[in-house]
Amino acid sequence: MKEKKNNALAEIVSALMDANTVLIFPHISMDGDAMGSSAALCAALRKAGKTAHVVVEEELPDMVAFLDRGYCTENPALPGRPDVCVCVDCGEYRRFPKRKALFLSGALSICVDHHKTTTPFLDLNYIDGAAAATAEIMYDLISLMGVGIDAEIGGALYAGIVTDTGKFQYSNTTRKTHLIAAELHAVGVRAAEISILLYQNERMEKRLMESRILGEAELFAGGRAVISCITRKMLEETGGRLDETDGVTEMLRDIRGVELACLLKEKSPRTIKVSLRSKRDFDVAAFSEENGGGGHVRAAGFTAKGRSVEAVKAKLMRELEERLSCVAQPGK
Amino acid sequence: MKEKKNNALAEIVSALMDANTVLIFPHISMDGDAMGSSAALCAALRKAGKTAHVVVEEELPDMVAFLDRGYCTENPALPGRPDVCVCVDCGEYRRFPKRKALFLSGALSICVDHHKTTTPFLDLNYIDGAAAATAEIMYDLISLMGVGIDAEIGGALYAGIVTDTGKFQYSNTTRKTHLIAAELHAVGVRAAEISILLYQNERMEKRLMESRILGEAELFAGGRAVISCITRKMLEETGGRLDETDGVTEMLRDIRGVELACLLKEKSPRTIKVSLRSKRDFDVAAFSEENGGGGHVRAAGFTAKGRSVEAVKAKLMRELEERLSCVAQPGK
Repeated sequence: MKEKKNNALAEIVSALMDANTVLIFPHISMDGDAMGSSAALCAALRKAGKTAHVVVEEELPDMVAFLDRGYCTENPALPGRPDVCVCVDCGEYRRFPKRKALFLSGALSICVDHHKTTTPFLDLNYIDGAAAATAEIMYDLISLMGVGIDAEIGGALYAGIVTDTGKFQYSNTTRKTHLIAAELHAVGVRAAEISILLYQNERMEKRLMESRILGEAELFAGGRAVISCITRKMLEETGGRLDETDGVTEMLRDIRGVELACLLKEKSPRTIKVSLRSKRDFDVAAFSEENGGGGHVRAAGFTAKGRSVEAVKAKLMRELEERLSCVAQPGK
Repeated sequence: MKEKKNNALAEIVSALMDANTVLIFPHISMDGDAMGSSAALCAALRKAGKTAHVVVEEELPDMVAFLDRGYCTENPALPGRPDVCVCVDCGEYRRFPKRKALFLSGALSICVDHHKTTTPFLDLNYIDGAAAATAEIMYDLISLMGVGIDAEIGGALYAGIVTDTGKFQYSNTTRKTHLIAAELHAVGVRAAEISILLYQNERMEKRLMESRILGEAELFAGGRAVISCITRKMLEETGGRLDETDGVTEMLRDIRGVELACLLKEKSPRTIKVSLRSKRDFDVAAFSEENGGGGHVRAAGFTAKGRSVEAVKAKLMRELEERLSCVAQPGK
């Protein structure tokens, strides 16, 4: 078997321009980058006269639903097998599990991704771990297609970039990220409206849940860490959902002096999901991996089974206090 | 008397380069743009061999204190009268009230500002209401000085831009804003660290106050508006401060379906400060002006005197419900 390798973007563009039918596969639990990059590619391919669809296997998350302008379908009707299947913003079949058979039915397979952990595994691959978002790669790819990036394609790319860079604030943001954003403004992308659609559309129940989580917050490890929880009871009382805790975990991290924030989420009485965020130094990915989970260096998590929220909390506080004593204390 | 006008940036740069001593006056209640623009100008002038100071009249707010790298003083010691005094990010003497006499002691006065309401009032003026931040103007000005924008000057400019554009999300953000940010990345600005210093440095007491404010939130006007309050009692119980409510008012605005968010802040038993934020259509500046206050179209406020929190709340809800019935309802 030939070893898979990274290809030139131009090879991938050639393959796409040679195709008549293209199916696009973003990962499950779609975020702004997966959906934005997929929508932009689909719009560009249609502009080039191709039959193209974004294939999904679950309802679109609220936050990104506005990006679907007729691109997404669970059952694409094609006359025969697709010419090309592209997986976007992911690099493993288990990131689109229910669509694997359809994906493999394509004559040619392509991966476009920016996750550092992805290695080439398809016929053609373009993986750039230095790209802040897959949408950055997609900007270059669509530019090479020569169809012209318009406000619709550009808006989808913008949503991808703004999501994966945390509004241009994460350390993955580069000079290139801003140069692309400048170009997207130039083609008429309504950036402020996209920001409203992405970030100003939270459920009231989420806010009430956040109120409770912030109210339960407790500093430990000499103020260098903070812990809070959301129990089944708190969910019932507020109407919040466990998939809505991202922002509030970051609010905990953003407390002065705090390096590490922990949020315990009671999925069921003895299944506790632990979300961890760090500011500068603490490797939460490594800690989560030790506990059977994973993630990024500054945002990761794991699941603790067989213990109550209180028991998980006590154990975590003990362990993390010890770990934090080994992490450099920043100057005041 | 000659009518004051806007000057070319080159004239202002000439005047600064001809001076030996320059004093810089940011507005009171300094934000990231006032402080960042002032610090950048001060650093650039010192790099050009000038004696320069940023003159202040109050303690630096926590959020921007890190930008003072030996620039700020309440009493600048100069051998004689200053050659040039520059007011930055403001356009009226009452924005630096305790420093007015010192400002007027300069041989030449200059205004550099981006507020749309500012009109030329000094010897030399450069006011550009289309600039997203005064730091954008300062970027052009310092570029013309020819001293070279390094990581220190660039970091201060970046802080100004990121603050006044709401992390590049407000509608004042343009292609040019991103082009400048790209250049600042290129000169070595540590953008992610500046973001941590600006935004990840909140007091625990602020979080507890936010918990209470979110818990008290109440939708009205058919879910198109939300209102909450922070009373003296809630301040005492949480240790929060009335100057720390910015983020939480925006969290209220960011609720789905909400066009208008109101936060009532009990300054004293019968002095209630009202903060208003809107999403797309409601002109909170106009409404605040009618009530003796002011501000921007999407962020404004006023003070209600002589009534309790409950009374102000009831009156506001009645008035705003009526007003909102006249504002276009967005599609689902």
